[in-house]
Amino acid sequence: MKVLVTGGAGFLGQRLARQLLKRGQLSDSQGRAQTIDELILLDVVPASNFGDTRVRVIAGDIADGALMRKVIDTGVGSIFHMAAILSGQAEADFDLGMRINIDAPRLLLEICRERGHKPKVVFTSSVAVYGGKLPDVVLDTTALNPQSSYGAQKAIGELLLNDYSRKGFVDGRVMRLPTISVRPGKPNKAASSFASGIIREPLNGVASVCPVSPDLRLWLLSPRCAINSLIAGHELSAESLGDRRTISLPGVSVTVGEMVSALEKVAGPEVVSHISFEPDPTIERIVRSWPGAWDVSRAQALGLSADKDFETMIRAYIEDDLRQVAS
Amino acid sequence: MKVLVTGGAGFLGQRLARQLLKRGQLSDSQGRAQTIDELILLDVVPASNFGDTRVRVIAGDIADGALMRKVIDTGVGSIFHMAAILSGQAEADFDLGMRINIDAPRLLLEICRERGHKPKVVFTSSVAVYGGKLPDVVLDTTALNPQSSYGAQKAIGELLLNDYSRKGFVDGRVMRLPTISVRPGKPNKAASSFASGIIREPLNGVASVCPVSPDLRLWLLSPRCAINSLIAGHELSAESLGDRRTISLPGVSVTVGEMVSALEKVAGPEVVSHISFEPDPTIERIVRSWPGAWDVSRAQALGLSADKDFETMIRAYIEDDLRQVAS
Repeated sequence: MKVLVTGGAGFLGQRLARQLLKRGQLSDSQGRAQTIDELILLDVVPASNFGDTRVRVIAGDIADGALMRKVIDTGVGSIFHMAAILSGQAEADFDLGMRINIDAPRLLLEICRERGHKPKVVFTSSVAVYGGKLPDVVLDTTALNPQSSYGAQKAIGELLLNDYSRKGFVDGRVMRLPTISVRPGKPNKAASSFASGIIREPLNGVASVCPVSPDLRLWLLSPRCAINSLIAGHELSAESLGDRRTISLPGVSVTVGEMVSALEKVAGPEVVSHISFEPDPTIERIVRSWPGAWDVSRAQALGLSADKDFETMIRAYIEDDLRQVAS
Repeated sequence: MKVLVTGGAGFLGQRLARQLLKRGQLSDSQGRAQTIDELILLDVVPASNFGDTRVRVIAGDIADGALMRKVIDTGVGSIFHMAAILSGQAEADFDLGMRINIDAPRLLLEICRERGHKPKVVFTSSVAVYGGKLPDVVLDTTALNPQSSYGAQKAIGELLLNDYSRKGFVDGRVMRLPTISVRPGKPNKAASSFASGIIREPLNGVASVCPVSPDLRLWLLSPRCAINSLIAGHELSAESLGDRRTISLPGVSVTVGEMVSALEKVAGPEVVSHISFEPDPTIERIVRSWPGAWDVSRAQALGLSADKDFETMIRAYIEDDLRQVAS
């Protein structure tokens, strides 16, 4: 079968692609293992094909109906929809956020519905769907109250995928991700970009300015663990999900201060000295509206797990990414 | 100022219009009383103008951008968006539901944003945004988990209005309505149509078939009280709403069996003998996924109230509507 990854040139998209190529197969809606004959990496810029003949790279706009109708045919058995406009950019460019975070996933679902072959569709969602007054540990039964356009758009994507699944148009699942840390490469346009920057930059001998207070609590997941969870979530049976296709993935709950201490333990005080604090109220407001932890019992019962602790996550970055070319 | 009511030819739209004409004014975002110079009643069919020169009737499609851009100018200070495809029909005609319950409200918000004058916008929402396993009394902090396309679409409308308000594009508020009972006129395409039918039809000497079990619990509000709440919700200040523009309106919690008993008390056993029970699993499934009650403390603190009990609601129907021409 064919597998489509949108946002396939992005950091997580590329990592997912590598993992899928290594696995070579995915299970379909009936639980049967299907060989991945073709892996389509779609993004606004050309993705790397890793020199693998199974990879087809397409550069284009995921909100373009004509393109998407060409890309998604009945041979596409699984779709990982990773493309998104991140929190900081969606707040700054409202129209772009609406287009890529609502119109594009809806178009994708609509084309699947037109095709009628009911592919597996994995959406990613975010801590940003929560907001306002929250309990210390958010439950699956806690109301969404997003305080950013990104969060509202992701919450709408969750509702769409759930309803398209309930109607039998797709076999969907939403993986609600903690903030990813440590991301390799450059700062991105997420309000939470610092959650990687304050670890990555110092380890690379570069100064890093932290825009939030040390007491701010974050809910984090390593890229390695995120990719494993996305694939594990894809492999779950529809029956195991019941009437809720959204799964909140396990994470590690740490304050920014604890992150800095963990970095010091792993890499020493000289590395930590590259971090300075300079509050940015806009970023602090957005990130503080997110939960610092959520209940993971459902995800764990489904066999999904998080990193051991933040030190392990720093070591995973050093192992996987430090001084490698950003991908 | 001008006031726009979409769904202005509908039962609630017409009743709201009459009430607005009687009041003659509404407060703007600064809390200043503004005279209603023009009341625009927009619907797919022409609304009644009540012989009032302030009323302008427009028949057209609320998902038509060209029409809506003609209707909404900076003189439109308040919008009551009442038009919707109801639960039963949205389940049967997915495309129509998406168009009227998502595209139309988004278009409306988008035009307000283009105009830049930040009107007050009132959306109505529904018990149908909830679903799945629910506590006996749903809280404001309980997660939405709609089990119908109508419910998913209404939940998306809530998210949109909240984010457009947070961004300062409109001064919005969502009034989440209990099921309206007793509606006058004919059965409609809501899955909950019976919640009026089992009272209305017998009172008019007509047989009524109830498609759900007597033990099913409903959360109800009279038309009279609903209109009062919509206007009271419009009049609330933005400050009083904080970071949640959605208000769950108080209602009366009764089982279908208790509704029948109340009817017998008010109108006697002969009237009740017109009711028969014939289960419809599709309707039962949809309606049983809705809450039988929700916490009303926030709404009450904001000064909003419900009917006294279901007997009062039957008497209100008899007083307001029985044997009058359906409007």
